[in-house]
Amino acid sequence: MSRNSFISMAVIRRLPRYYRYLREMNDTGIKMISSRELADCMELTASQVRQDFNCFGDFGQQGCGYDIESLTASIAKILGLDENYRVVVMGAGRMGQTLMENFSFNRRGFELVAAFDTDRSKCGEVAGVPVYHVDSIGEFFASHPKADIGVLAVPADQARKGADYLTACGVKAIWNITKEELPIAEANGILVENLHISDSLMTLSYRLTEFENKLYGN
Amino acid sequence: MSRNSFISMAVIRRLPRYYRYLREMNDTGIKMISSRELADCMELTASQVRQDFNCFGDFGQQGCGYDIESLTASIAKILGLDENYRVVVMGAGRMGQTLMENFSFNRRGFELVAAFDTDRSKCGEVAGVPVYHVDSIGEFFASHPKADIGVLAVPADQARKGADYLTACGVKAIWNITKEELPIAEANGILVENLHISDSLMTLSYRLTEFENKLYGN
Repeated sequence: MSRNSFISMAVIRRLPRYYRYLREMNDTGIKMISSRELADCMELTASQVRQDFNCFGDFGQQGCGYDIESLTASIAKILGLDENYRVVVMGAGRMGQTLMENFSFNRRGFELVAAFDTDRSKCGEVAGVPVYHVDSIGEFFASHPKADIGVLAVPADQARKGADYLTACGVKAIWNITKEELPIAEANGILVENLHISDSLMTLSYRLTEFENKLYGN
Repeated sequence: MSRNSFISMAVIRRLPRYYRYLREMNDTGIKMISSRELADCMELTASQVRQDFNCFGDFGQQGCGYDIESLTASIAKILGLDENYRVVVMGAGRMGQTLMENFSFNRRGFELVAAFDTDRSKCGEVAGVPVYHVDSIGEFFASHPKADIGVLAVPADQARKGADYLTACGVKAIWNITKEELPIAEANGILVENLHISDSLMTLSYRLTEFENKLYGN
């Protein structure tokens, strides 16, 4: 599969949504989908969908639509979901625990290997995953392969310190789910993705406002 | 402020990000920004930024850039953040509690009024917000204005039931933070926005894969 050297972040940020829709369709047994049908679910135009996929090579035959199973597999590969990235969670307080119990890392192609906390009372096991004290990071990784991705789930005022602990785990990328925004490329070359759940609530607020304006003709 | 009758969801989904960036800039005391500078933060082109804002009316003067404070206020208004929507949380288990403690509803323009749960042991107060038993929904709203937005934070297998309780609270929109996907327009006319935190992790996985490919020249 060929990739263009530059792909805009706008396209990249649509890939996870394509992947979700396609996987849902795949689960319902649908085999083929046209760019128009996919565009409708994605709230895009058919031409945008074709352009997006063209960035990564050619996935469909003109007039035949896309084979859902192979398109899903191709997008999974582009997203690195076949890399089986090893994930550690930093912070096993309420936020870390909620994530570990509710977010299916393994089903999504990630291997959740361990969590760490500075509080010994948090150590033990959550959702079948071992939780160690941060003092054991060195010992743990002496006998385990380094982690690829670290989830930062510490209190906001400890975000920097938590990121340092993740660096000690050898991670190359940090998924920051704290309230504290981190620069997306850290000075030490670690990639950072900040989770912004408020974007989703603001989108709903927009839709509600639109809906009310239509209803009451403001 | 004039709005076009049809605005694509792609534009709408960018508005919360514009809002976040602009508010951060506003907080640092920057007064004006060009479409090019804004495009750089947003990973868009300057022409896309101008097109996006043209959907909602004219925010800048050719050659002068945008006044950050007034643009931020305009986008807040478009997003309905000045409506002071009343929010209730359904489910005060770990997920609901984590959200109530970590997500600053009030600072974001929403009024968090109460939470409800089916488990009496969860009732009391979380982060200064009262938590009542679902049996008290009728009584509560007999003496309080109806809620606008309901946050669905129940276990996934109780999502439908939880949505029914939110309907009883009079909400017009549901922010679904459970794993269970709900149709985005419910049959009874309630708007639904599903939170997909996995999109953010998949974006990071993509970036990491790109980074590794460049490093090792795959």
